Amino acid sequence: MANEYEVIIIGGGPAGLSAGLYASRDRLKSLLIERGAPGGQITNAELVENYPGFAQGISGLELGQLIHQQATRYGLETLAAEATGIELEGEKRVVITTKGKFSARAVIIASGSERRKLGIAGEEEFTGRGVSYCATCDGPFFKDSTVAVIGGGNAAITEALHLAKFASRVRVIHRRHELRATRILQEKARAEPKIEFLWDTEVEGIEGKDRVKRLNLSNVKSGEKSTLDVAGVFVAVGLKPNTDYLKGVLPLDDAGYIVTNEKMETRVAGIFAAGDVRLNSARQAITAAGDGATAAVFAEKFVSR
Amino acid sequence: MANEYEVIIIGGGPAGLSAGLYASRDRLKSLLIERGAPGGQITNAELVENYPGFAQGISGLELGQLIHQQATRYGLETLAAEATGIELEGEKRVVITTKGKFSARAVIIASGSERRKLGIAGEEEFTGRGVSYCATCDGPFFKDSTVAVIGGGNAAITEALHLAKFASRVRVIHRRHELRATRILQEKARAEPKIEFLWDTEVEGIEGKDRVKRLNLSNVKSGEKSTLDVAGVFVAVGLKPNTDYLKGVLPLDDAGYIVTNEKMETRVAGIFAAGDVRLNSARQAITAAGDGATAAVFAEKFVSR
Repeated sequence: MANEYEVIIIGGGPAGLSAGLYASRDRLKSLLIERGAPGGQITNAELVENYPGFAQGISGLELGQLIHQQATRYGLETLAAEATGIELEGEKRVVITTKGKFSARAVIIASGSERRKLGIAGEEEFTGRGVSYCATCDGPFFKDSTVAVIGGGNAAITEALHLAKFASRVRVIHRRHELRATRILQEKARAEPKIEFLWDTEVEGIEGKDRVKRLNLSNVKSGEKSTLDVAGVFVAVGLKPNTDYLKGVLPLDDAGYIVTNEKMETRVAGIFAAGDVRLNSARQAITAAGDGATAAVFAEKFVSR
Repeated sequence: MANEYEVIIIGGGPAGLSAGLYASRDRLKSLLIERGAPGGQITNAELVENYPGFAQGISGLELGQLIHQQATRYGLETLAAEATGIELEGEKRVVITTKGKFSARAVIIASGSERRKLGIAGEEEFTGRGVSYCATCDGPFFKDSTVAVIGGGNAAITEALHLAKFASRVRVIHRRHELRATRILQEKARAEPKIEFLWDTEVEGIEGKDRVKRLNLSNVKSGEKSTLDVAGVFVAVGLKPNTDYLKGVLPLDDAGYIVTNEKMETRVAGIFAAGDVRLNSARQAITAAGDGATAAVFAEKFVSR
């Protein structure tokens, strides 16, 4: 069979690129499969202050590009395709993609996660016309407008703080009465006069004509209904791991995350997972890069034994 | 009690500094305790090519300094002292140091590892006079000399390759008949004409007068004894985790490493471990930095719950 490798890596964010760097630098015949632009979600971050080594901070785009450039210096092959499944054939793990089948002794899954959708009326219809999942991407379109952010975790508060640079008012709508975001983010949000909180509130629908005009809200405690006029709504209600193609191959938790141990081994021999896609990832660029290197080091031992 | 913190970090290498960066950036009152110069073992590396983000490579010293600079930007306190024990007092973890006691809800152990000694005649006597544990530090002293490297893993081969820049001959002495080092390192070593291998050989003693003159060797298969004239000998027979002060506090494996799960939790609530000090660390600067961030993220959840 052609298309044989020693290690195949699925995903080109910090986890996958770091795994590719380590595997190829260790002279393993390695293929990295990425369906989109290389660099992963970090490339959307305006400024990364917490990736150790960049004391003055670095833009996410630049960090992603640097890691990509470094990862491909040692013979890593890359393929622009989407992985759609993995089959086990004896000692081989066969990765099925939109561009054919590729096999390897070891596979490192680093396919990351994406923003979870609300699944409410108007969400699909107005996506790109006022509904957004990325404040860094779309924030500048909402200068001097009122926008809403839906969610209460780190992502939601980060989005709200970013939007406060552009919008005149940022309403954070959260279905609970307190935030899950870390303290530093909560402090920053409370210190920002443009940001106001709507507690115990769920969004039931998004309305508009050509673009978003208002949200239909419901108070989860009183059941009271209301509307809120907004020009834009940013959805930040969590992440969904990109693991649909792995159902039946690997045990996943209820939310779809891959269970690993501290060596990044999954429960299937020769299959490793790294970064946001795994259960209990800290979901940081640095932890993803560390995970990827760890996975590659143990994949090398597995392949070479 | 004075000296109270939310998180105490033991060790100032990439793992400890990354943990300190995350903990202090997250507004936790954090103390980092380091007995030596900050930066850890990585500062001895001449060139680091595999820390994702530095596509052109970076000196270990510079990388260590950058991470240190970044980690102390957000209010991290540092203390130059040696941790000598940890006591559990209800919810508090009390770190005993050469400069007093400090307590916290959570402790992150990142005290790293150091080079293992051979424990043979002459080793102690000639340390610093021909016996070395760091080719980067001492290699230049052996220009045009014959030197030996003892060991067969990544560290030994890395040392041998480095020494080949200075010495006229580098003899790698290994007690087995094959190397444990990764393929890329083995290939590089075999391509370097100055490097020769002595297989199945143990060093029984180091002799000299003011400085090292020769090694007493024994073939582990035939039992045959011999001597080898060298000007220097570099010991690279593995690492010893710096965990002596944790005996009785945490379960350690036979070699002294701390067992963690993928969240960097040890078996004692509120005590985390990161980097080289933990079992199954991949022992890379990037994995240590990733571990440290992961430990801090889960320590924050523990402290804030």
